[in-house]
Amino acid sequence: MSFKSDIEIAREANKKPIQEIGAKLGITSDDLLPYGHDKAKVSQDFINSVQGRENGKLILVTAINPTPAGEGKTTTTVGLGDGLNAIGKKAAICIREASLGPCFGMKGGAAGGGYAQVVPMEEMNLHFTGDFHAITSAHNLLSAMIDNHIYWGNELEIDIRRVVWRRVLDMNDRALRQITASLGGVANGFPREAGFDITVASEVMACLCLANDLTDLQKRLGDIIVAYRRDRSPVYCRDLKADGAMTVLLKDAMQPNIVQTLENNPAFVHGGPFANIAHGCNSVIATTTALKLADYVVTEAGFGADLGAEKFMNIKCRKAGIAPDCVVLVATVRAMKMNGGVAKADLGPENVQAVQDGCPNLGRHIGNVKSFGVPVVVAINHFVSDTDAEVQAVKDYVESQGAEAILCKHWASGSDGIKELATRVAEIADSGVSQFAPLYRDDMPLFDKIETIAKRIYRADEVLADQKIRDQLRAWEDQGFDHLPICMAKTQYSFSTDPNLRGAPTGHGVPVREVRLSAGAGFIVVICGEIMTMPGLPRTPSAEQIMLNDAGEVEGLF
Amino acid sequence: MSFKSDIEIAREANKKPIQEIGAKLGITSDDLLPYGHDKAKVSQDFINSVQGRENGKLILVTAINPTPAGEGKTTTTVGLGDGLNAIGKKAAICIREASLGPCFGMKGGAAGGGYAQVVPMEEMNLHFTGDFHAITSAHNLLSAMIDNHIYWGNELEIDIRRVVWRRVLDMNDRALRQITASLGGVANGFPREAGFDITVASEVMACLCLANDLTDLQKRLGDIIVAYRRDRSPVYCRDLKADGAMTVLLKDAMQPNIVQTLENNPAFVHGGPFANIAHGCNSVIATTTALKLADYVVTEAGFGADLGAEKFMNIKCRKAGIAPDCVVLVATVRAMKMNGGVAKADLGPENVQAVQDGCPNLGRHIGNVKSFGVPVVVAINHFVSDTDAEVQAVKDYVESQGAEAILCKHWASGSDGIKELATRVAEIADSGVSQFAPLYRDDMPLFDKIETIAKRIYRADEVLADQKIRDQLRAWEDQGFDHLPICMAKTQYSFSTDPNLRGAPTGHGVPVREVRLSAGAGFIVVICGEIMTMPGLPRTPSAEQIMLNDAGEVEGLF
Repeated sequence: MSFKSDIEIAREANKKPIQEIGAKLGITSDDLLPYGHDKAKVSQDFINSVQGRENGKLILVTAINPTPAGEGKTTTTVGLGDGLNAIGKKAAICIREASLGPCFGMKGGAAGGGYAQVVPMEEMNLHFTGDFHAITSAHNLLSAMIDNHIYWGNELEIDIRRVVWRRVLDMNDRALRQITASLGGVANGFPREAGFDITVASEVMACLCLANDLTDLQKRLGDIIVAYRRDRSPVYCRDLKADGAMTVLLKDAMQPNIVQTLENNPAFVHGGPFANIAHGCNSVIATTTALKLADYVVTEAGFGADLGAEKFMNIKCRKAGIAPDCVVLVATVRAMKMNGGVAKADLGPENVQAVQDGCPNLGRHIGNVKSFGVPVVVAINHFVSDTDAEVQAVKDYVESQGAEAILCKHWASGSDGIKELATRVAEIADSGVSQFAPLYRDDMPLFDKIETIAKRIYRADEVLADQKIRDQLRAWEDQGFDHLPICMAKTQYSFSTDPNLRGAPTGHGVPVREVRLSAGAGFIVVICGEIMTMPGLPRTPSAEQIMLNDAGEVEGLF
Repeated sequence: MSFKSDIEIAREANKKPIQEIGAKLGITSDDLLPYGHDKAKVSQDFINSVQGRENGKLILVTAINPTPAGEGKTTTTVGLGDGLNAIGKKAAICIREASLGPCFGMKGGAAGGGYAQVVPMEEMNLHFTGDFHAITSAHNLLSAMIDNHIYWGNELEIDIRRVVWRRVLDMNDRALRQITASLGGVANGFPREAGFDITVASEVMACLCLANDLTDLQKRLGDIIVAYRRDRSPVYCRDLKADGAMTVLLKDAMQPNIVQTLENNPAFVHGGPFANIAHGCNSVIATTTALKLADYVVTEAGFGADLGAEKFMNIKCRKAGIAPDCVVLVATVRAMKMNGGVAKADLGPENVQAVQDGCPNLGRHIGNVKSFGVPVVVAINHFVSDTDAEVQAVKDYVESQGAEAILCKHWASGSDGIKELATRVAEIADSGVSQFAPLYRDDMPLFDKIETIAKRIYRADEVLADQKIRDQLRAWEDQGFDHLPICMAKTQYSFSTDPNLRGAPTGHGVPVREVRLSAGAGFIVVICGEIMTMPGLPRTPSAEQIMLNDAGEVEGLF
């Protein structure tokens, strides 16, 4: 038995003009800003015009802790959107844009797989509509204005040792992680330590993804802290008068992009904040716009539910005033086996015991999601190697946890393979049983917020933090940042901070290494363990195999 | 008397859908890749389909040495295109794209002015269709792959002291001119000196602008020399296997952009190589495509005729196999006065003597252009402060040089103000009098090529170059680069290398500071005097005033 690759399937797609896709949601050609024939932005004027409408139902797709076996969260998001449309519902999906840098390293993009994909795949993995380039430009304009300000006299008295605003590129380039800039003499400024992050890690990205509109965006950009003075007082982006020009650079990027699934259903693909040092969800403006246009909106959040769903609920929903009506938790038999201790190379043969051993990871995520007051359904994303007994083992376990699991074959069959899940999800969303509440209140002390996440989501015994970190949190509270939510940065591979601790660990502590204030985005980043904000390329980067073939098609990108 | 600003005029433009503009040149909607409603790319398939057609007439707009008074070269290019259409000719214009970085410093873009503009002005000065971002990405992918290769064992034995490939950003950021990269320990690579240029200075930009198609582009990219080994042997982009992925990143950028003038005539805006370290003309593919679609194509080249026209003839025309049928030399009364020794603050009152004193600068350009075998017409770009006597002085002088000068009022009146020039230019182009030949043969020794330009165009007595530079040129000849043309890099403000030496200096020497091989672009850069490949921002950058107004329009960009 042989399968077509994702790219082969994508190339065979029978794409419709993007105007036809927009029309499904009532967007006229005039309100679509086309980028080629299969991509468009939805105009801000149109978005403004639909604000009075009722919201559709919001469905969050999240997952167990990721394993090298793959879970197919985006694939399931796309499949579920197609499935809902197939059973006669008016549904749209909302996913994140792909980062360019990693495409040249190891992985392709985030457009789904099999017969549950969003197209045009190549463009989405390359420049798409230029949003990330705009973010890179806006970010680096601010960087240039900081050093330029220092160069011309430093009226704001910036301490050049305390410039916290780095530069960004959408490229995996480890050589830029740490640099000394402004070398070469008087004409080039004052030498200082600096560095680059990848664009998705930019606070500008987080601001864009959380902003309601351009006015809100400019306010958030102005609020960004770029440096400190010798007396430790902060210097804001606004002090450098960079917020206006940055907003101008971002005015097109702020408009959500619309493309289509293989089954010609509308998909919003907009924003892509790093899921560790930011909140890892697509943009608020895309989600809230989709909710005005569709009866059901299926979206996803980065990493497993301990990180992605937690931040979706506590940051995105809180900030945007939205709430999920149903949560779909994606699991695979293979990932259960890995959580049960099987190595990736040994995933082939049937092993019901290993599936059962891995299920507690799934169980804990089910409980966590429920703790937000939200109904949950488990989607078993079917792999061809799964046996009936293995699938049944997952179903039995989920039932024992007071939930239900539905086998989905959208990867192989598109919407036909996921109608049962779509039907059930629509029922739950329509039932109004969801009683969403965030995990902690705005007015809880910052350290208590961290403890709440660590104990109730990670099931840790304690949070380990130096006095210096506790003092820093208290200082921010005094400065008026006490109401901010927490953005946790920890490994996605485990509930704990040890990536090798699979399953459902208990008794662990959560060591906090560092805290960072993202005053523009509006959250406090709590860093537990290593955090990489500029990836490197592998020994043999995939870029070496990426090229145009004789037909002018892109090879090797995926 | 009060005038509307360029941006006020641009905002009042009665733009037509880009499909209507394309239709004027026989491009169907299917062959246009729209970017919004007023910008599009012309598909490569369509370009391939018209290759068998006859070429239209090519008209080059160039100018005297630029002065702070402004000459209006782009304005005249746009106006002449509109003028030709107004007298019933099928004409298109071809100009360069604007660089984003300088927009946040001092100057706006390059979209013309008054009633001779190309729109949409804001988009053209911001991200436009993303071409420059694609060039930035392709360039920096190669940079990352170089350091990544060194990191993983340096099989190619790159001498890290001799990496000549820098990084780029489309930003004025002096702090990045010279840096030390790869600091911070083993995981970040081998520390070495590095730096950033502005994107328009990238050899990738020059390659894109000179390539005939994607195949040619990939070959040129592969030919780029990125570093040398300890034995001084070159390491090519191709050795790092980066050329394929870079071409993939540039596949959309390679397709020319089409927009419209205020009078709804088609304008190709594509490519923007730096006019000093590259050849400063719009892309070959845009010009050659326009020549297949229009009967008259009006294009321009950067800086004055000593640099811009010389490189247009000796590099672009030579490489692309095209030739101008007529050259328009733009002059202004104000610039003549400045060449005659008047300071900018004193340009107000009538001063016929100063005009006459400055005219020899114009005269020399006339002679230079003629030396290529090409007919020349002087366009006097009218300013409201010009007096009749001053204009007559220019006309009389030009006549004494065996040429003709025509007063043009396109800035104030659009095509109505430039019909006389359009009529005359069309006559000359149709007459077939042009007998174009480049200034030097491919097989002339490299140093002799430099001397030919210095003596015949700059009218210098000699070229001053160290033995080291002469040896380097000879070494390149031995390595097979003897056939390459020369790309001069010198001040645009004077025929000499001294920017303060206006008029028509003689008796000067041309000191060559450095020579660089651009093996991908296919020329040898000869640097005479200071050359700045990464600008800085001024004390009060215009970014501080750039913002969205209450109507959502961009303020302060121009």
